[in-house]
Amino acid sequence: MDINTAKQALDNIERMQYAYHHAMAIITNDASTVAPPESYACRGVALGILSGESFKLETSPELKEAVATLYENKEEAGEEYFRRAELLRESYRKLDKIPMEEFMAYQELMNDANVAWIKAKRDNDFASFAPYIQKILDTQKRFASLTDPDKDPYDVALDEHEEGTSREYYDKFFDEVKATLIPLIAKIREKEQPDNSWLKVSYPIEVQREFSDLVMDLFHLDKNHCVIAETEHPYTSGTCSQDVRITTHYYENDPIASLYSVIHEGGHANYELHVNPDYDYNCLSGGASMALHESQSRFWENFVGRSESFISVLWPKFQELFPEQTAGHTAEDLYRCVNRAEPSLIRTEADELTYSLHILIRYEIEKQLFEGTLRVEDIPAAWNEKYKEYLGVTVPNDSEGCLQDVHWSQGSFGYFPTYSLGTAYSAQILNTLRKELDFDGLIAANDLQPILDWLAERIYRFGCLKKPGTYVPDITGEPFSAKYYTDYLTEKYTKLYNL
Amino acid sequence: MDINTAKQALDNIERMQYAYHHAMAIITNDASTVAPPESYACRGVALGILSGESFKLETSPELKEAVATLYENKEEAGEEYFRRAELLRESYRKLDKIPMEEFMAYQELMNDANVAWIKAKRDNDFASFAPYIQKILDTQKRFASLTDPDKDPYDVALDEHEEGTSREYYDKFFDEVKATLIPLIAKIREKEQPDNSWLKVSYPIEVQREFSDLVMDLFHLDKNHCVIAETEHPYTSGTCSQDVRITTHYYENDPIASLYSVIHEGGHANYELHVNPDYDYNCLSGGASMALHESQSRFWENFVGRSESFISVLWPKFQELFPEQTAGHTAEDLYRCVNRAEPSLIRTEADELTYSLHILIRYEIEKQLFEGTLRVEDIPAAWNEKYKEYLGVTVPNDSEGCLQDVHWSQGSFGYFPTYSLGTAYSAQILNTLRKELDFDGLIAANDLQPILDWLAERIYRFGCLKKPGTYVPDITGEPFSAKYYTDYLTEKYTKLYNL
Repeated sequence: MDINTAKQALDNIERMQYAYHHAMAIITNDASTVAPPESYACRGVALGILSGESFKLETSPELKEAVATLYENKEEAGEEYFRRAELLRESYRKLDKIPMEEFMAYQELMNDANVAWIKAKRDNDFASFAPYIQKILDTQKRFASLTDPDKDPYDVALDEHEEGTSREYYDKFFDEVKATLIPLIAKIREKEQPDNSWLKVSYPIEVQREFSDLVMDLFHLDKNHCVIAETEHPYTSGTCSQDVRITTHYYENDPIASLYSVIHEGGHANYELHVNPDYDYNCLSGGASMALHESQSRFWENFVGRSESFISVLWPKFQELFPEQTAGHTAEDLYRCVNRAEPSLIRTEADELTYSLHILIRYEIEKQLFEGTLRVEDIPAAWNEKYKEYLGVTVPNDSEGCLQDVHWSQGSFGYFPTYSLGTAYSAQILNTLRKELDFDGLIAANDLQPILDWLAERIYRFGCLKKPGTYVPDITGEPFSAKYYTDYLTEKYTKLYNL
Repeated sequence: MDINTAKQALDNIERMQYAYHHAMAIITNDASTVAPPESYACRGVALGILSGESFKLETSPELKEAVATLYENKEEAGEEYFRRAELLRESYRKLDKIPMEEFMAYQELMNDANVAWIKAKRDNDFASFAPYIQKILDTQKRFASLTDPDKDPYDVALDEHEEGTSREYYDKFFDEVKATLIPLIAKIREKEQPDNSWLKVSYPIEVQREFSDLVMDLFHLDKNHCVIAETEHPYTSGTCSQDVRITTHYYENDPIASLYSVIHEGGHANYELHVNPDYDYNCLSGGASMALHESQSRFWENFVGRSESFISVLWPKFQELFPEQTAGHTAEDLYRCVNRAEPSLIRTEADELTYSLHILIRYEIEKQLFEGTLRVEDIPAAWNEKYKEYLGVTVPNDSEGCLQDVHWSQGSFGYFPTYSLGTAYSAQILNTLRKELDFDGLIAANDLQPILDWLAERIYRFGCLKKPGTYVPDITGEPFSAKYYTDYLTEKYTKLYNL
């Protein structure tokens, strides 16, 4: 096969692949947002078949031939085709080892698991969800034993979510983070907390919806290509740079929860919306890795969204929408409340400081599940114990405990640690950005465009072209280090709480 | 191929086919309800490819072999497999003659046309939409010349929407209908009209949404399998008996428009929801024909929804939701208003009596477009002239004129006449139903279940198993005749207006 034929073949197959991914993404998004509650069976049939067809394409001889040609002729292939070949090669290396029927059955399992999780969370019924976790775990271990027989299966899962990571990598990372967090949290425990009772009264959901709309505008989310919906668990789902969906969850007595969901998911969305549109119908589309994706969601959520400058911009708008609820309060009050560092139950609503302890708990439980030192039925007990130990909180029920997150129902073991790692990535990136832009000044002036442009130029536009591990060193000129993250937290919270 | 192998092969291929149809239905529904406005290009790429894959399956040698085996062994195949073979045989007879690239391009064209129609309607800009109508017309004529070279292309379109119909068939039908309608409408023109100004004040959309929810319950729509959304033009979209979507459009100053959209689409939905679930993943799923589908939507909308008995049930609920707007009025007032026979601009909001004239106008225009005696650019002039002639109304702009309906943007030429034909079908069916059930008594007692069961037993459960033309004779014991429809209208409106 000559190079041009290979390029053409790859374009065609990837375009077909895109059609399947588009269909599955839209069906899954529809399922979480508006589909009739009892429609999952027929959706499962469709998703199983579509994923099977997608599987066939990803492992087809035509694709492999085109990939081999381009991979072996790096120079002539050029950077973009070579990278596509490299990514697809790794993908079919794994898929080739998994029987298609098992792969399809796994897709159907996740469709069912998601429905089961929603019910279990609603009914506080962990036992009904446990068999799904077990099956997903068993399948992932089996798949790992087929694709990477010499590796530990949890290391495989971690590496799948962030290339180059492993238990060893994360153990070291979390040790550093913990060393800063635990004493900081202990010191804050002795301090007086800002009163946030005024944020726990009724904020009508209709008005919160208007507020979300306004927040999307503040973060320059292009509504021609990005819309918001409501789901049990907020997420972002993009099919290419032209079509990205975000979701949030409204709580009448907590407008802050949805606010930071919108900013967080909006960060993911802005990443996807700014990927080079030339990559729309091939595997360079989308974010480079989970940690990079989370680095951006959490950059916008925390470094921007929880900054004093941003709160000064947000405050008058928040006041205008909720005049009664905010009467007698100031921007300073809001700033203190959204940064109130306080051990709590729910990860997505956690403050910046305690957040990584929520992640650590999940990481440790996943590690034990894969090692076999924790049985699925014992997850609630382990969860509650760790929340008591690390955060000092008592978990009142599984819905607010080990059933709170959607991830396991989607088979995303190994995902959680990327939230903390990504945050640490972006702390280091922010340090560089601050040298080039007046970060706080721009935020205070409600002029986020230069910041967005800076990130789009250095990260977003590349999609999956560059290897995930290259961003932090390329942008910052240094190897990755957790210290920017821990320094940031130390400085911010020392000042906030006069430590 | 032996019979059992053929059955198995057909099941497998139809299950795959279902996956494509499911995907395309969900993507299209998502597009009309929630998708970002500028996401159509990437959706078009996906839909084009999915329809191409579906096309390949529908015309695959494996399918043909299975179909041939079952078709030639009617006895051993059994009723259901034989009918599936018969339907698929006719489908690939046509598809075989259409080049796949042209078929895919046509799917993409309709995706674009729908977007263009929404913009054109919003901006009252027929000229921007005209090229799409032209391309769709040209394609349909070309396809008809390939599949049925000996037939008139509009006859092909009519037959596709209702087997056995043609211009000759509809010309005769509409002549009979017109002969009753024109003099009735003329007589009513001399009568005093009920005052409906109280229905033209503000009915907040939030409350209208609650009202829709209640109306869905009144008509026993199973919310576990059927949900409502909002679109420019109301429609029903089902993927199988487990997942049916309906939509409506709210107008703040006209709660009646959405009320009858919900009942109409709810009629379509109840049909699809009651098809034998064994047919879920094959071509027996869904309604038997467009006229039968419309017979049911219009049965529930008009014969039930616009009856005195139903209004007596609805009235207290309507009053409760809109106490201020309905103050001083009675159920009798509402009954007269929803049956106010008055020539108007918008088909979907037309009363029962003038409705078929709206259809006749569209039928005549389509006929002329296919004959070539009307140019696309002259549609607005022809439309406005016919509205003046048949209904005596002046069309103020194309948005409320020839751009009001979604159908042409979906390539549905030949669809409109099935609304009138279907209504006439159901008038005849109602005549039989009345002999077996206390129709008015059940409605007045808010006990619609026996009526729904009666229709499900005789129509819905069969899906596409029976030929569309057999329902009316089988149920009523007589050949189809328009006289039940014209008699019904004559009796109802003579009484309403004391003619």
